[in-house]
Amino acid sequence: MFTEMIQPRFSETDALGHINNTVVAVWFEACRTPIFQIFSPELDLQRWPLIVASIAIDFKAQLHYGDEVEVRSWISRIGNSSFEVTQQAWQQGHCCAEGRAALVRFDYQSQKAMPLSSEQRAALEQHNQ
Amino acid sequence: MFTEMIQPRFSETDALGHINNTVVAVWFEACRTPIFQIFSPELDLQRWPLIVASIAIDFKAQLHYGDEVEVRSWISRIGNSSFEVTQQAWQQGHCCAEGRAALVRFDYQSQKAMPLSSEQRAALEQHNQ
Amino acid sequence: MFTEMIQPRFSETDALGHINNTVVAVWFEACRTPIFQIFSPELDLQRWPLIVASIAIDFKAQLHYGDEVEVRSWISRIGNSSFEVTQQAWQQGHCCAEGRAALVRFDYQSQKAMPLSSEQRAALEQHNQ
Amino acid sequence: MFTEMIQPRFSETDALGHINNTVVAVWFEACRTPIFQIFSPELDLQRWPLIVASIAIDFKAQLHYGDEVEVRSWISRIGNSSFEVTQQAWQQGHCCAEGRAALVRFDYQSQKAMPLSSEQRAALEQHNQ
Repeated sequence: MFTEMIQPRFSETDALGHINNTVVAVWFEACRTPIFQIFSPELDLQRWPLIVASIAIDFKAQLHYGDEVEVRSWISRIGNSSFEVTQQAWQQGHCCAEGRAALVRFDYQSQKAMPLSSEQRAALEQHNQ
Repeated sequence: MFTEMIQPRFSETDALGHINNTVVAVWFEACRTPIFQIFSPELDLQRWPLIVASIAIDFKAQLHYGDEVEVRSWISRIGNSSFEVTQQAWQQGHCCAEGRAALVRFDYQSQKAMPLSSEQRAALEQHNQ
Repeated sequence: MFTEMIQPRFSETDALGHINNTVVAVWFEACRTPIFQIFSPELDLQRWPLIVASIAIDFKAQLHYGDEVEVRSWISRIGNSSFEVTQQAWQQGHCCAEGRAALVRFDYQSQKAMPLSSEQRAALEQHNQ
Repeated sequence: MFTEMIQPRFSETDALGHINNTVVAVWFEACRTPIFQIFSPELDLQRWPLIVASIAIDFKAQLHYGDEVEVRSWISRIGNSSFEVTQQAWQQGHCCAEGRAALVRFDYQSQKAMPLSSEQRAALEQHNQ
């Protein structure tokens, strides 16, 4: 499991006084950086190796400004070319949001999915909980 | 069906040269405004009547800067207190992303879900395709 | 003068119930697209011709969700390699924010500023008010 | 001086491969949280005590994804009701952006500026470099 700390930003609140729901998608992507590094240790944007196929987020409780958020991320499924990341946003002891993102190993030049290598698969398996 | 036009913004691209996936969640929320108006014609933020329970988005093709996007939104399910909005982002004749959002009629003061009124239900039913 | 209409988005509000100040910077950049097209009619991201040297925004009144915003943009200064865009955000008959952005014609490959061509200068001069 | 660390997010890049200029305004606001706490230790959004009168940012070098950013903030001017925060974004030993924000002590109920108290003034003076 990867754990990242997020300090909610004032601009991430909305008129209801809590963190806007779309911000959680941003936080979850931000907290996939260590997973990106399995595929590109240097985070080389010229040869980016992944594409997002889908995201889904369940909102369980309202997140607020002023208290740190812990985002937990792990690999919940490994396919042939794709894998799924499950992520949770915790604030003050509560799991406030849980999401899943399906990522595909992708060659942007040929615009094609590519099978995961055995090294990538092994690295992903180390973070399956 | 509700139809809204979005002009992609330069700041909405990412280093891969396309619209960042998290932006689609923002566009979809923005294009739910006419649905919000079923519940609050004045869009009264002091008595906001809805909460987002979940969102899910499938990314089918890359969206790019420089061409307008048409977002189509309709009501795909009506429950007791909740309903589902399905939304699509079209660019140059392609459906590039499709999402679903589950919204709940919600009283922020008592922090409780509330059943949809028959008027709200009837209004939602008019946009079920 | 260029005029663009912006529909404020729910996610652009903040906990104070108005549009967050950082959003105006995003709107102003979005509304410089017709100015970008003077330099790159196709908005070719592979050969982007401009870089932002500075921005400044004065906030005069609070912008709110639920009413359209008109952004007016014009060229307020033309230098050798650079020029200044002045922009205003109007809502319900009030100028709520005014900003200036200094843009520089820039070659990203050599990482150098380039003098404006006489054609670019002439095109900018057509929008100096 | 206040110092905050920012981990640039993938969604904060733009098609030019660097951090979009509008993101710096967001980071700078986020890093004013310890200054907000001088006015509202609990960050009480119901009685928010400040409004932004203006922001200005000079971009000196391109900020990139993959390396941490240090934001330094200090009080560069104290007026009667207002004060100015100067902020810098440093990455890999370079000052990449410098900005100023003018903040005003503000009563949202009466919609009026209020003079800084002597306690607030003293607290601000402790962070004047």
